[in-house]
Amino acid sequence: MQSEKHNNPAHLSFAELKALLARIFERHGTSAEVAEVLADNCASAQRDGADSHGIFRMPGYVSTLASGWVDGKAVPEVRDAAPGFITADAKNGFAQPALAAARSLLIEKARTNGIALLAIHNSHHFAALWPDVEPFAREGLVALSFVNSMACVVPHGGTRALFGTNPIAFAAPREGADPLVFDLATSAIANGDVQIAAREGKMLPEGYGVDRDGQPTCDPKAILDGGALLPFGGYKGSALSMMVELLAAALTGGNFSFDFDWSGHPGAQTPWTGQLLIVIDPSKGAGNNFARRTETLVRQMQAAGQPRQPGDRRYRQRALAEKEGIPIAVAELARLHALAKAG
Amino acid sequence: MQSEKHNNPAHLSFAELKALLARIFERHGTSAEVAEVLADNCASAQRDGADSHGIFRMPGYVSTLASGWVDGKAVPEVRDAAPGFITADAKNGFAQPALAAARSLLIEKARTNGIALLAIHNSHHFAALWPDVEPFAREGLVALSFVNSMACVVPHGGTRALFGTNPIAFAAPREGADPLVFDLATSAIANGDVQIAAREGKMLPEGYGVDRDGQPTCDPKAILDGGALLPFGGYKGSALSMMVELLAAALTGGNFSFDFDWSGHPGAQTPWTGQLLIVIDPSKGAGNNFARRTETLVRQMQAAGQPRQPGDRRYRQRALAEKEGIPIAVAELARLHALAKAG
Repeated sequence: MQSEKHNNPAHLSFAELKALLARIFERHGTSAEVAEVLADNCASAQRDGADSHGIFRMPGYVSTLASGWVDGKAVPEVRDAAPGFITADAKNGFAQPALAAARSLLIEKARTNGIALLAIHNSHHFAALWPDVEPFAREGLVALSFVNSMACVVPHGGTRALFGTNPIAFAAPREGADPLVFDLATSAIANGDVQIAAREGKMLPEGYGVDRDGQPTCDPKAILDGGALLPFGGYKGSALSMMVELLAAALTGGNFSFDFDWSGHPGAQTPWTGQLLIVIDPSKGAGNNFARRTETLVRQMQAAGQPRQPGDRRYRQRALAEKEGIPIAVAELARLHALAKAG
Repeated sequence: MQSEKHNNPAHLSFAELKALLARIFERHGTSAEVAEVLADNCASAQRDGADSHGIFRMPGYVSTLASGWVDGKAVPEVRDAAPGFITADAKNGFAQPALAAARSLLIEKARTNGIALLAIHNSHHFAALWPDVEPFAREGLVALSFVNSMACVVPHGGTRALFGTNPIAFAAPREGADPLVFDLATSAIANGDVQIAAREGKMLPEGYGVDRDGQPTCDPKAILDGGALLPFGGYKGSALSMMVELLAAALTGGNFSFDFDWSGHPGAQTPWTGQLLIVIDPSKGAGNNFARRTETLVRQMQAAGQPRQPGDRRYRQRALAEKEGIPIAVAELARLHALAKAG
């Protein structure tokens, strides 16, 4: 859609796009509260140029809601399990409303104890992970998150898919600058990017996936059609993906990526798993000048010749979008308006 | 040394090897307490077949102690900073005695709060990281550790070394089996393995390092002689390495991998940085059958064709060593005995 987008696109403000997306969510069966949270998340990804997690995801949300696989009206149940341990049952709803419901308690616990975690289970996560951690860094905290997804990654040395794309996200405050934030799939490529490549008819580099026979392939369609992804970085990425299964699912009580069966819900696309967030208050340590040290590290990375820091591209796109509006291809916008009316 | 080791090696019990190594440490200037902790660590690595972190490290420890760079008699200062946050000043000593001093408090805090961390700074870590996390998993806890080292890894896209090899270690309990434990350098290869390859005159695979001009090389000697390592997995491994700098150094108050200058201490080899440990009590969550879920995941990984799980090779070597003793080449053993007398 890259070319379509830049061919005289419409420009929407963040508020306009968010309102449009919220109308779509509500129209297709979510509560107003859930619509607000998911629309904010999806509009943020679109604004920041994270195309594979922006409005590209809306048809998937809509078909999943229509399938009855996820409860768009679920009210998460937050439990204060221990001084540093919060659990949230998302009640077969989305993970983000569960995080929103637990967020202030999580921050309070992190500030009191120095470290705290939120273990979400019975949840669906279909979005980018960085929007879940960036806000903590804006409050001076360090945040880590792990979420497992659906069996689409072959463990290193194995022959069939077992792990999800299983991203790890990290956010740290920087003195006088936007936080340092990364969100990386432990697969060699994100599912959304495979879908985009398939839709655009592009081939992928080698080492990203296998076909339905477990043979290496560069064809995104072969990966999506019964094939699977590979972990990034060989056995190391595979070990990290395993860790994400344990932290996001076993620790939270959520499903592993291979645990759930959505075959009875045609159109379902949202993985029904779990999510872990760990939040640390750096002011409790000897490193009470944490944000300044982060800034020192960034300057050294720049001096070492690393041209771009994690998060930089998103912040540049965000600044541009705040100035000029969020560009949306006219045909894409028409599809969104149609979704807001259909249902 | 592989061939030498298998050419009629001597066989020592764990207790014998540990006692010999402790004598070396004390002889070269550590306290009895520090000798006990480091000897246990080093003998464990040798027993488990982790050659690059076993007795191979002893000359490095000895020359570092002789250089005055590290205080082998340091008494760590542990501070209860918050209900879930312990800091330890290793007082320019080794990191492992600081962990040993804080360990019972860390476990108590993890059990009370659900999660707790130990931030060690002013510390030297010259060993494998898995011995630091495995014991927590044996008590039913989940443990993560991060330690930065010395500038020897070029950030992705950069031209000079900035990060350390910066390992991440993870341990999780398994029902009815040894814990699942991994310890992975975020560099494409560990420094110790480069040193071993150089000593054995072997070339490395492509993508592991650069020479002093920043050009790719497969020659371990060129990497050690003013060159540098590359991160594993491209920009993703580089982002994780950056995270390790922030967690192990900025958060703890320790040095970044590029912060210290040991040029005034010829022979110094131990990085003077920091270390972070995060310990989680999984029984606090919905996942109170955590060890059983880990075992389920392991069985699925085996069924998916992954032949070996993280830690398996070490456990096999350990079982063999417990039966037959730890094999040490005769010449190597003679060198250890000489070190125990010299000083």
